[in-house]
Amino acid sequence: MDWDSAFASRARHMQSSEIREFLKILQDTDVVSFAGGIPDATLFPLDDIRDVVAEAMRNDDDARMALQYAATEGYGPLRQWIAEYMTRAGVPCDEDNVLVTTGSQQALELLAKMFLGPGDTALVQEPTFLGALQAFGAYQPRYQTFRNDLVPSAEDVRTDALRHGSTLRFAYGVSDFCNPSGESLSLELRHRLLDQLSELGVPLIEDNPYQELWFDRSPDRSCAALAISRCGSIEKSPVVFCGSFSKVLVPGLRVGWMCGARGVIRQAAMAKQAADLHTPVLNQMIVHRLAVRTLERHLPLLREAYARKRDIMLDALAAAMPHGVRWTRPAGGLFTMLTMPLGLDATDLLRRSLREARVAFVPGRAFFAHRDHGNTARLNFSHPNRSDIQDGIARLGALVSEVVASMRTSAA
Amino acid sequence: MDWDSAFASRARHMQSSEIREFLKILQDTDVVSFAGGIPDATLFPLDDIRDVVAEAMRNDDDARMALQYAATEGYGPLRQWIAEYMTRAGVPCDEDNVLVTTGSQQALELLAKMFLGPGDTALVQEPTFLGALQAFGAYQPRYQTFRNDLVPSAEDVRTDALRHGSTLRFAYGVSDFCNPSGESLSLELRHRLLDQLSELGVPLIEDNPYQELWFDRSPDRSCAALAISRCGSIEKSPVVFCGSFSKVLVPGLRVGWMCGARGVIRQAAMAKQAADLHTPVLNQMIVHRLAVRTLERHLPLLREAYARKRDIMLDALAAAMPHGVRWTRPAGGLFTMLTMPLGLDATDLLRRSLREARVAFVPGRAFFAHRDHGNTARLNFSHPNRSDIQDGIARLGALVSEVVASMRTSAA
Repeated sequence: MDWDSAFASRARHMQSSEIREFLKILQDTDVVSFAGGIPDATLFPLDDIRDVVAEAMRNDDDARMALQYAATEGYGPLRQWIAEYMTRAGVPCDEDNVLVTTGSQQALELLAKMFLGPGDTALVQEPTFLGALQAFGAYQPRYQTFRNDLVPSAEDVRTDALRHGSTLRFAYGVSDFCNPSGESLSLELRHRLLDQLSELGVPLIEDNPYQELWFDRSPDRSCAALAISRCGSIEKSPVVFCGSFSKVLVPGLRVGWMCGARGVIRQAAMAKQAADLHTPVLNQMIVHRLAVRTLERHLPLLREAYARKRDIMLDALAAAMPHGVRWTRPAGGLFTMLTMPLGLDATDLLRRSLREARVAFVPGRAFFAHRDHGNTARLNFSHPNRSDIQDGIARLGALVSEVVASMRTSAA
Repeated sequence: MDWDSAFASRARHMQSSEIREFLKILQDTDVVSFAGGIPDATLFPLDDIRDVVAEAMRNDDDARMALQYAATEGYGPLRQWIAEYMTRAGVPCDEDNVLVTTGSQQALELLAKMFLGPGDTALVQEPTFLGALQAFGAYQPRYQTFRNDLVPSAEDVRTDALRHGSTLRFAYGVSDFCNPSGESLSLELRHRLLDQLSELGVPLIEDNPYQELWFDRSPDRSCAALAISRCGSIEKSPVVFCGSFSKVLVPGLRVGWMCGARGVIRQAAMAKQAADLHTPVLNQMIVHRLAVRTLERHLPLLREAYARKRDIMLDALAAAMPHGVRWTRPAGGLFTMLTMPLGLDATDLLRRSLREARVAFVPGRAFFAHRDHGNTARLNFSHPNRSDIQDGIARLGALVSEVVASMRTSAA
């Protein structure tokens, strides 16, 4: 059987994430990994989780419900909790506006499937969450980009799509502490983005898994909330909001959500039914109970712990990196992004780094729709411990210094 | 926001399953439901599940692994167990031939995404599992069909696809006790199907969630096993086997698998990473421990209980249904299929049945790729209890008798 020739052309557009390889590296305890976008498992609220798991399984009727087939839209009490959470965050809605998904990755996959045909245009943030590029990629879109400091005019977007005989389908971005740079979209640019999209008549997919992980001050209102202030109701809003419990509780249960107008949630539920019928009910019951009882007191601990790790990483970078290397100063989230001198290729650097410095990171190119910016790298500070951050950045800094120095020598 | 016009054309091909509606009906305790394809929750091995859940969470390191991000391919010990299980069933393989999926529904979705472009042909069993038609539908294939008693020649399949300017991409079927009819593909026709597909050079997706639920004798060798006997190795086999723990342990944890050549598993893992990153690890740990310790002694109980329910349903049908109504006599699985006189529309019947007889079932049309056979209906016997089967079939039989009699009167 010649599988490669049996696959549809779509299959050639599916890309494997570098992160898979790095998860394997994580098994190797000798390597300090800044690669995964992974929470610190030592901060998981294990005792609470044990309690809620035991509770969900205690009563026979509850246990049977936790283990039986269930409705695609999600476990009722969890949908209700999410609707109340979204309402408190300025997005008044009810449970019919909520679809529970198997992680927010699934929300991106379903939306790509619903909106994108081959050659259609997606307007994506630059840099962009790698998982979004993977979800969109199989549907063979072309990309235009906007930056956290520059949103193009509707006219420019329209002209560019037209020139390629393409139709703009949606915009996609992470508003707060985005993956990979840790930066946020300013309030002014959120308004500008909504203005341009309103003129273009296309939806915004707002992906916001990090918004609760702020270190200094709570973030600006989400685009979803701003849009409702403008148009009066979620039923008229063009924003589909994707949320996740992965970064604020635990990722391995794979529970996220999508919140938007009923018309889009209904269509997404049809797509989800074909994809996996429903998200496991036991997982939804666990997350619901943790959301009710644990989340509010757990968040301050996470914010404090990750802020401390960010400080350690920024200090270590300042001490170790040579002149000509810049990095972002995230006010929340899990990442900082390095920009090294032009001509330094982060993929080459990674090969040497794994061998010589025993440090892993993700080359930044993976986060750019056009696969440029080869001189950037994403560093995760949530997963490694304090001394690994210090030692790892010192070793990486020494290697980068050596590479930069040899570039100067060969340029001279 | 006008969502309907914002969706890609693909979205119009996503269909919602009638089963969703029937799950809502199930809440209504006054209705006897033969609609869902749902196991009997009173047979779930709850005590064992409680034990394995508690074990998975007991040790801090295990609990953190259960709740952290993980590799897309699946939890190592579960992949290993599945590879050994497949090997015992005549499909020698190792864990690189196994992808753990979020229910076997996800395997169908991933395979559709990998193989089908708009207008491509899928050769599907008739009748076909509704969830497969949902998974395939969004990728806009056309369908040819084969029956459990009639597999067309390669020449006929080729000619038909050519006439439509289409390319055959794969065949799909449930070999044992298929959903919706409960019937199996005979050994002779398994061979014939493999012969024709070999001539056509396309893969077979063999979906086999019910194979362990045999009542009288264990089923014939799977097409996956037969293909390996022919070609010598899973790496050369054109069969992708989809399995599930939903019907033999519990469905709500959403754990299934795909087993095939490495080339197809690697591609499927890429597609899965974009779809939901990975199946929840806690769920995989629970299923792995149950597979090791519970499955072998649990299966005889399930077989006996479902065989008894099948007998009760067949007896009740024989007592209640009028002349001119036929039904299958399944040797395993969860379903029987009624064929009523031509001209009797099962969707109309369902409306009256819900109101008058207080009985639910699934109109058979949903299981036919070409949406014909409107006079058929799927009846599930695994979920309702003994007296509900007897009472429900008696009431349904009385209604069908009345409808058939009035058809005869108006025809006379």
